[in-house]
Amino acid sequence: MSAYDDLMDFQRETEALAQVAGRLGWDQETVMPRGAAHQRGEEMAAMEGVLHARRSDPRIGDWLDRAEAADDVAAANLRLIRRMFDRTAKVPARLAAELARVTSLAQGQWAEARAAEDFAAFVPVLARVVDLRREEAQHLAQGGDAYDALLDDYEPGATAESLTAMFGALRPRLLALRDAALGSPHQPVPLTGTFGEGGQLAIATELATAFGYDFTRGRIDKAVHPFSSGSGADVRITTRTAPDDPFNCFYSTVHEVGHAAYEQAIDPAFALTPLGQGVSMGVHESQSRLYENQLGRSRAFTGWLHGRMTATFGDTGLEPDAFYGAVNRLHRGFIRTEADEVQYNLHVLLRFDLERALIDGTLAPAELEEAWNARFLTDFGYPVDRPSKGCLQDVHWSVGLFGYFPTYTLGNVYAGCLHAALRRDLPDLDAALTRGDTSPATGWLRERLQRWGGLRGPRATVAHATEQEPSEGPLLDYLEAKFAAIYRL
Amino acid sequence: MSAYDDLMDFQRETEALAQVAGRLGWDQETVMPRGAAHQRGEEMAAMEGVLHARRSDPRIGDWLDRAEAADDVAAANLRLIRRMFDRTAKVPARLAAELARVTSLAQGQWAEARAAEDFAAFVPVLARVVDLRREEAQHLAQGGDAYDALLDDYEPGATAESLTAMFGALRPRLLALRDAALGSPHQPVPLTGTFGEGGQLAIATELATAFGYDFTRGRIDKAVHPFSSGSGADVRITTRTAPDDPFNCFYSTVHEVGHAAYEQAIDPAFALTPLGQGVSMGVHESQSRLYENQLGRSRAFTGWLHGRMTATFGDTGLEPDAFYGAVNRLHRGFIRTEADEVQYNLHVLLRFDLERALIDGTLAPAELEEAWNARFLTDFGYPVDRPSKGCLQDVHWSVGLFGYFPTYTLGNVYAGCLHAALRRDLPDLDAALTRGDTSPATGWLRERLQRWGGLRGPRATVAHATEQEPSEGPLLDYLEAKFAAIYRL
Repeated sequence: MSAYDDLMDFQRETEALAQVAGRLGWDQETVMPRGAAHQRGEEMAAMEGVLHARRSDPRIGDWLDRAEAADDVAAANLRLIRRMFDRTAKVPARLAAELARVTSLAQGQWAEARAAEDFAAFVPVLARVVDLRREEAQHLAQGGDAYDALLDDYEPGATAESLTAMFGALRPRLLALRDAALGSPHQPVPLTGTFGEGGQLAIATELATAFGYDFTRGRIDKAVHPFSSGSGADVRITTRTAPDDPFNCFYSTVHEVGHAAYEQAIDPAFALTPLGQGVSMGVHESQSRLYENQLGRSRAFTGWLHGRMTATFGDTGLEPDAFYGAVNRLHRGFIRTEADEVQYNLHVLLRFDLERALIDGTLAPAELEEAWNARFLTDFGYPVDRPSKGCLQDVHWSVGLFGYFPTYTLGNVYAGCLHAALRRDLPDLDAALTRGDTSPATGWLRERLQRWGGLRGPRATVAHATEQEPSEGPLLDYLEAKFAAIYRL
Repeated sequence: MSAYDDLMDFQRETEALAQVAGRLGWDQETVMPRGAAHQRGEEMAAMEGVLHARRSDPRIGDWLDRAEAADDVAAANLRLIRRMFDRTAKVPARLAAELARVTSLAQGQWAEARAAEDFAAFVPVLARVVDLRREEAQHLAQGGDAYDALLDDYEPGATAESLTAMFGALRPRLLALRDAALGSPHQPVPLTGTFGEGGQLAIATELATAFGYDFTRGRIDKAVHPFSSGSGADVRITTRTAPDDPFNCFYSTVHEVGHAAYEQAIDPAFALTPLGQGVSMGVHESQSRLYENQLGRSRAFTGWLHGRMTATFGDTGLEPDAFYGAVNRLHRGFIRTEADEVQYNLHVLLRFDLERALIDGTLAPAELEEAWNARFLTDFGYPVDRPSKGCLQDVHWSVGLFGYFPTYTLGNVYAGCLHAALRRDLPDLDAALTRGDTSPATGWLRERLQRWGGLRGPRATVAHATEQEPSEGPLLDYLEAKFAAIYRL
C-alpha cells in the first residue's frame, strides 16, 4: 500500500460517515418522530465528533507528506484533502467547539426572535456569532482578507473584490429592468384557484422525471423546506405544497432536481472521494437555477407544463402565453426565496454588502436592522414593516454562514453562461422542451460539467463547460431579452 | 470528573452512534432507493469500524479499573460495560474481522441456495461459519461450555443445561396438545376473503395505539419483513400486508409493538446507557409474544378486533366465537414464523437441538439437511419436501446466530409467567380487553418490567415482575386450557 492508497482508504471511510451524518439530517426533516428531537441532537453531536476527529487525524498530514499523485485525479484528491486538513489545523479546537455551541444556540434564538418580531432579542447572540466568525476568519486568512477566507469555504477561489466588480455590473441593469417591467402597461395576470395536493405531487414527480432525476438512486418526500441531500448513489430531495401556489411546488422541485441531478451525474469512480460532490455552492446553484429558470420557466417548457396542468386540474383560465406570463411575473415582495428571476439577485446583493460590513467591523450587529431597512427601501422602493420580512428572514447568519449568500448570485451568473453556451450548441432545444424533453440540455450539462465533480476548481469547471471565462454578461442579456418580451418593453 | 463520569460520557456517545447505525438499517429496509445498496454497504462498514474501535478502546479498561459505583444503577452500568469490553477483548481482532467477512458472504450464499433449493451449495460456507463461531466460542468460554458462551450473547446467564431441562418438559405436553387439537372433530374454520391494504393498515394503526405504542416517539412503515428498530425516543416498527391474510398484518404489528413498547417504556434516565435497552432477547420476545398471543389472541380482545374488522370490511362471515377460532387455529405447515401458538415452540426446539450438535461437533454441516428432515418428520408427522421449507428457511445460521433460537421459546415461557401474574393481579382484565383497552395489562408490564431496562439480569427481571422464579408450567397450563376450550378437548 502506498501512502496515497492509505490516505484514500481513510478518506473513503470518512466520506461514507459524512454521508451517514447527512442522511440523519434528511431523516430529521422528513420522517423523524417529533419526540425524538433531543436524542437526535446527541446522535448528531456524536457523529460530528467522529468526523472532526477523523478530519484532524495527524496521520493525514503524514500521508499527505509522502503521497505522490499518479494522475490528475490523484492530484485533485490530494489538493482537496490538503485544503480540508489545513483548514481544520488552522482553527483552534477551542474556537471550533465554541462556534458549534454558539451557532446551535443562536439558531434557536433567531427562530424565537423572528416569531416574536424582536430584532433586539437576536442582537446579543448575533454579535457573538459575528465575533467568533471574525476570529476564525483571522486564523484562516493568516494576514489576508477575512471575508475572503470565509467565502473560500463555499466558493474556493472567489474573492470579495471579484464579486464586488461582478455585482456592481449587475445591480444597475437589474434595477432598470425591474423598474421598466413593473412600469409597463402590459402586466401578466397571476394564476388563481386552488390545486389539490395529489395532483401537485403527481406533476412534481413528472417534472423530476422530465429533468432526469434518477429515482432508483433517490426519492422525493415532503418537508417544510425543500432541499436536496446526499451524494453518489443516494441523493434525496424534498418538496412541499400549498393549495393556492402550485408553482412553488413545481419550481422548488425542479430546483432541487437540479442540485440532485448534479450529484447523481458525477463519475461513479469519484464516489466517496473529495471529487464525488458538487465542486462549490455557486456551481451547485448554477445547476438548480438553470433547471428551474432558463429551462423550467422557458416559454417552450411552460407550454408543456400548461398541458400537464390542464390535464390534471382542468382549465387553468390561462392560455399558454398568459400561463408563461403568470409563471414569470414580477411581484412586490420582501422574501428572497419567493422572489422572481429579476429581483432575486437584488436580495442577494443587499445581503452581500451588509455581511461584508459585519465581518470587516464597519457595521455593528445592533445596527443591522436599520441598515437593512434603509438599503431595502433604496433598492425596492417600499419599506420593510417587520423583521421577519427583513433582516430576520434568513437562517444563514444565525448559524454563522457569512460568505454563503453571494454564491446564490454567482450561481445565477454561471447559469447564464452555461445557458448561453448550450443554446449555442443546441439550436433545436426549444423543440424538445416543448415536448417536455429536457434531455438535450441536461445531457449537455452532464457531459460538459456535472460528471467532473470536484476535479477542477469552480470557475474552471464552468469555463471547461462553456469554453469561455465566466462573466455576468450572458445572464443580463438573457434576463433583458426574456422580460422585454413578456412585458413588451 | 470521576472515572465513572468519563466512562459514561464515552459510553453515551458510543450508544448514540449505535442508534445511528441501527437507524441506517431501518432506512435500508424501508425507504432506501434500491440503487443505493452498494454505497450503503460501505456506509454500514464504516459505522461498524467506528463502533468496534470505540468498544475496544483501551481507555475503557482504565476507567473500569478506577470507577466506583455510587448506587445500583452505576453498578449495573459498570457490570454491563465490563461484560461488553471483556467480550471484545477475548476475541482476537483477526477472528472478529473474519467472522464479519464470512457471515456477510454467507448470507448472500444462503439466499441464493434457498432460492435454488440447493442445500449442498450452502454447505461449504455454513461449515466455515460454524468453524469460526466454534473458534470464537472457545475464546469466549475459556474452558467452559462453548454453546453457553454463544447463548450468553443473547441471553446472559442462560445455559444449555437449564434450557434443555425446560424444553424437555415442554416438548411432550406440546406434542400431546397438538395431536389432540388436530385430532378433534371440532375444527375452527379459517378466515377467507380479500381485504384491502388501506383497511388493513388502518386497523394496524388502531392496534398499535390500543397496545400503547407512542407515535410521537415512533412510526410505522411497510417493509418486506416486520421488525422493530431503535431505543429510547425513536423506536420504529414496520409491517406488511397480504390481501388474503389480514391476521399476518395485524399480529405481526402487535408483535412488533410489544418489542417497541418495551423500548419506549424504559426509564428515560437510562437512555443512551447500557441499561437503556431491553435486557435480553428472551425478555424482549416475552413482551412481543405476550402482546401478540396472551393479550392479542385472547377471546376478549378478538371480540373487539372482530368489531373493527366488520366495521372496516363488512361481514367477515364469522361470528365472534368462530372469529376467535380462526385467529387461533392450528394448521399444518413447515415455516416457524407462520406457526400457531402451540406448534411454534416445536420449531424452535428442533433448531435448538440441531445447533447444539453443530457447535459441539456431533453433527457435521453436510448432515444438517438429513438431520433436520428426520427430526421434522418425527415431531410433525409429515416430510419436508424442499430445503426452503426446511433447514434453509431461516437466515440465522448463515449470519452466525447460534444460541439465538432458544430465546424465542424462552420468551414464550417468560410470557406465560408474566401472563399468569398479571391475570392474578388484574381479575377484570377481560372486561377491558373486550373494549380494546389493553392499558391494565400494558400498564402492569410497564411498571413491573419494562421501565427497568437492563438494571437486573434477564431472569431476575422476570422474577421481579412476577414475584416468582420463572418456569415453563404457566405457559403449558395456559396453552392447554386455551386450546382445550377452542377444540373442545
